[in-house]
Amino acid sequence: MRKIAESTVRRLSLYLRFLEEFEEQGIETVSSEALAARGGTTSAQVRKDLSFFGSFGKRGLGYGVPELVRKLREILGLGRTYRVAMIGAGKIGSALVQYRGFKQRGFEIAAIFDSDPAKVGKAWNGLTVKDARELEAELRRQPVEIAVIVTPAEAAQAVTDRCIGLGVKAILNFAPVQLVVPDDVVVKTVNLALELETLSYALTNR
Amino acid sequence: MRKIAESTVRRLSLYLRFLEEFEEQGIETVSSEALAARGGTTSAQVRKDLSFFGSFGKRGLGYGVPELVRKLREILGLGRTYRVAMIGAGKIGSALVQYRGFKQRGFEIAAIFDSDPAKVGKAWNGLTVKDARELEAELRRQPVEIAVIVTPAEAAQAVTDRCIGLGVKAILNFAPVQLVVPDDVVVKTVNLALELETLSYALTNR
Repeated sequence: MRKIAESTVRRLSLYLRFLEEFEEQGIETVSSEALAARGGTTSAQVRKDLSFFGSFGKRGLGYGVPELVRKLREILGLGRTYRVAMIGAGKIGSALVQYRGFKQRGFEIAAIFDSDPAKVGKAWNGLTVKDARELEAELRRQPVEIAVIVTPAEAAQAVTDRCIGLGVKAILNFAPVQLVVPDDVVVKTVNLALELETLSYALTNR
Repeated sequence: MRKIAESTVRRLSLYLRFLEEFEEQGIETVSSEALAARGGTTSAQVRKDLSFFGSFGKRGLGYGVPELVRKLREILGLGRTYRVAMIGAGKIGSALVQYRGFKQRGFEIAAIFDSDPAKVGKAWNGLTVKDARELEAELRRQPVEIAVIVTPAEAAQAVTDRCIGLGVKAILNFAPVQLVVPDDVVVKTVNLALELETLSYALTNR
């Protein structure tokens, strides 16, 4: 398959969200216009995005909703389970562990680590918080594919390096730092400070 | 001031983060190369980004760290306080209310609303959770500039419309929906499902 721009992947993910809603409502077909209107884009863009993956839909009839849901889930790699290690058992980690969207998308939190002795050993949503010093021992025994980094900024890069050394290929980073990783590792950073600053910039420069 | 692309604003926000670290470490000047290395970009990009805002730095000497921090904070609108309403008192809302980055950047959570009778009236970080039905009454008495939407998906658009009707011009949205807003309102969406799907896409299509 051709390499697809991240912006396209993000739109496919949005289309999937809308299509899942349509499916719940029992809607069986949808036009590219309806998908475009829902996603704030154009029908030409929708058709272009979907054309990357072969031929969908019938002219004049639109796309079959269940078929497109199935295909998009397959494209986005959602047909399987991913094992996730949560690194950091603070407030954000706690909220994430309880976030249903993880499990719904096949992301199974398999281990939680923290370096704070007050947190190690505590039960968290059916798991026990493990000592961050045991990261190597634990993840060698039970490997994960994804690490979610919710440590303080100053601890994030070192623990990321350790995870990569253990074969982790995907990182979801909530620490307010730019992580440096090898080319074969993908990082997504959710940086709240940065989102807030694009808001304050917009409010100030209107 | 010229209109600046969002990607530039995001880089300026990242530079500020690094410069604040340099300032804490007592570093007084920094080269565009050092800033670029820290931010995963090029020194030409750094110079171009900063040139939008006039002339900084001295050839061969680099940028004065405190001066650049002050200027970037001003550009990003961080020299003042923004009043924020948190709509939704669930797990993510709870984590956000305790997130220090809000206050550090001048974002003051002034009110919290929820429609769940079990949550209304509870104390949250020095505030009392208010009934969402009182949104108009409360925000007319004590207006806010920013609304943080942490409701379930199906409630997000309606409450966003109500906030906009009350004069809110900036929205930080954590609900997994694409909000529709007028042109003069800025929305930033933090969509965890979408971040997870770009990771699963990358893991599947390597």
